[in-house]
Amino acid sequence: MDLRKLGEFGLIEDIKQGIEVPQGYLGIGDDCAVMPQKSGMETLVSTDMLIEGTHFLMDDISAYRLGWKSAAVNISDIAAMGGRCTGSFLSFALPKGLGKEWTDEFFRGYKEISSLYGCPLLGGDTTSSPDRLCISVTVTGEAPAGKSVKRSYAAIGDLICVTGNLGDSGCGLKIILEGSGRDADAEILIARHYLPMPRVKEGMEIAAAGASAMMDISDGIGSDLRHIIEASGVGAEIDTSMIPLSNELKSKCAEYGWDPLELAISGGEDYELLFTISEENAKKIDFNHFVIGKIISGDKIIWRGSERDYMGFRHF
Amino acid sequence: MDLRKLGEFGLIEDIKQGIEVPQGYLGIGDDCAVMPQKSGMETLVSTDMLIEGTHFLMDDISAYRLGWKSAAVNISDIAAMGGRCTGSFLSFALPKGLGKEWTDEFFRGYKEISSLYGCPLLGGDTTSSPDRLCISVTVTGEAPAGKSVKRSYAAIGDLICVTGNLGDSGCGLKIILEGSGRDADAEILIARHYLPMPRVKEGMEIAAAGASAMMDISDGIGSDLRHIIEASGVGAEIDTSMIPLSNELKSKCAEYGWDPLELAISGGEDYELLFTISEENAKKIDFNHFVIGKIISGDKIIWRGSERDYMGFRHF
Repeated sequence: MDLRKLGEFGLIEDIKQGIEVPQGYLGIGDDCAVMPQKSGMETLVSTDMLIEGTHFLMDDISAYRLGWKSAAVNISDIAAMGGRCTGSFLSFALPKGLGKEWTDEFFRGYKEISSLYGCPLLGGDTTSSPDRLCISVTVTGEAPAGKSVKRSYAAIGDLICVTGNLGDSGCGLKIILEGSGRDADAEILIARHYLPMPRVKEGMEIAAAGASAMMDISDGIGSDLRHIIEASGVGAEIDTSMIPLSNELKSKCAEYGWDPLELAISGGEDYELLFTISEENAKKIDFNHFVIGKIISGDKIIWRGSERDYMGFRHF
Repeated sequence: MDLRKLGEFGLIEDIKQGIEVPQGYLGIGDDCAVMPQKSGMETLVSTDMLIEGTHFLMDDISAYRLGWKSAAVNISDIAAMGGRCTGSFLSFALPKGLGKEWTDEFFRGYKEISSLYGCPLLGGDTTSSPDRLCISVTVTGEAPAGKSVKRSYAAIGDLICVTGNLGDSGCGLKIILEGSGRDADAEILIARHYLPMPRVKEGMEIAAAGASAMMDISDGIGSDLRHIIEASGVGAEIDTSMIPLSNELKSKCAEYGWDPLELAISGGEDYELLFTISEENAKKIDFNHFVIGKIISGDKIIWRGSERDYMGFRHF
């Protein structure tokens, strides 16, 4: 059987079979795994792999930005549980062509974001690769016991919210791949793609306010919201006119004739947080956030204000 | 600068620069990183990357054995700190050619050893690769606070011990690469190479007995012991006649004219434990182990009973 037919999520379902997850642990299927500590806290773990040719091309991304982004995508998973980061572990296989100048720049980016988020590099593995660069990052975090925010407790009537503008990263990537010329707006969108700023502080506040479900937006809300409604057994209604869009996104989409909503919903890699929370608890959040819809009964996402059924990115 | 000139350990030294490791944490440079928990325990983390073409060839290793070994090498790092395993995280990039039959077998091997060591697969990342299979495993464990055994406390007069026969794995690999024919002895040595049994239970007993330093033998004691003496600021004297060798190893080495001691010292990948312990504390260990030498003053390893200065495996 070809794995592409099974798809990434089918493969994951398959892998889960027969694994005994100890009581109090959360295994495969959320942004992070959760392991209880002896008292009062729980450990969060997230890991991601980045392969040259699948996730990035060496000519398209600087070593600094690749270092930054490798750490960022995992830090963002800790944010998505409402945790704080405790450390990171970096493994990489280096092809022969890459010299010390390259790794120095890579580590400058990796360490800068790590330092910004108080997430020290604590270990890893270095090896050589016959050809392609391969990077794997694991980030650990912690949250008060029982308080990390899963995907599975969204309740009917909850507000659906995001922490910031969507679509910038997807638009930045589209400009890299298809765009002509780089003005200031283009550079801002490209930086949003390569230098995401995970919402760790916001995630902790959202968790403390009592959010019912949370994820980081890596594949696009079209796909990511589907994970929340499937895990929670609910439906969702999104008012597409409420999705926050940056001026840079609107301006470049107007210039190129692209659909900003499609980028906002399916573009992915914004690393904003998508969360559900009761109206009551939402009042406790005192930073700027955006209500884009509501959890309803059923098992579908209804996109008000649009004809289209938006879908997220597929890895396979 | 070519990274090969810097070497793996030079690169690691370089990476460590400028990282602020919080108090109570152990960062880069031991078998595992150590992170304190809120009470009484500490979290251990180890990670390893395996790249097709660098660490294994698809034609040489079955999917089942690769799954087993991918988990084993990290479980062994938890053993090397005297910890127990709490969970594992597996990321892999699959090339197009591999089907579900292959991944099923891989996971059968991975899950069998995980189950044997009470180390459930709790998360990971699955993605596609343009060509080569790339695997990254992170294993977490825990030990009583302050009790995980580092590399840096070997003291003059301590005994140097190992938990079992050395050289089998290296001999198994040499048979795969250079040998002719596969008799029962050869199959046993090859199984020792592909299906290592990490010494977790023994590691916990050794830690409880009060070992001063411990590592798992991945590169060969020639190289691994050097890490202990450098970290501890001591020297070592090894009586090569005391190094435990299996009958299978002796028999195949006699047949092929290979040096069994060279394989035992430089072959690597035995995943036995190498530890130092005072004579007094060694009496508390009630399973079979082998004293092969003594910690002395200085900064060198003296190999008694041999003319050679054995060195371990280099990744670069």
